[in-house]
Amino acid sequence: MKVSTIITLKKDVLDPQGKVIHQALDGMGFKNVNEIRQGKYFEIDINEEDPKKAKLIVEDMCKKLLANLVIENYKIIETQ
Amino acid sequence: MKVSTIITLKKDVLDPQGKVIHQALDGMGFKNVNEIRQGKYFEIDINEEDPKKAKLIVEDMCKKLLANLVIENYKIIETQ
Repeated sequence: MKVSTIITLKKDVLDPQGKVIHQALDGMGFKNVNEIRQGKYFEIDINEEDPKKAKLIVEDMCKKLLANLVIENYKIIETQ
Repeated sequence: MKVSTIITLKKDVLDPQGKVIHQALDGMGFKNVNEIRQGKYFEIDINEEDPKKAKLIVEDMCKKLLANLVIENYKIIETQ
């Protein structure tokens, strides 16, 4: 089954990449943006048919490799 | 309001970064992964209270800056 996860910077952590994209959009005429924050997205196709177990495995992956929990949060968003 | 968008590589496009993460996970003992694909995630806080209009603006941003439509797809996922 496929499980997806979104990794985002914590609220208090500066996101310079997001700022640059914000400026670029501003320069292109998108004037009504307050803030942009960029994150990472992973789509993991896993050999596990039980959604709960698959989610637990992906959570483990996030903790051990995908996310830096000091500055990032992860969210497991979709299970199909 | 906040609108989020996920940018992913199209199915037929190679994802070397995902492959490397796959190998790393494999080396760490996660043996039951079939495939990992990485994408980008943007959380856009926009000065527009109408969800439909906000989505249209973000779609426009995806087409003009955030996504490379030759090799990437975008999905607008969440509107709060």
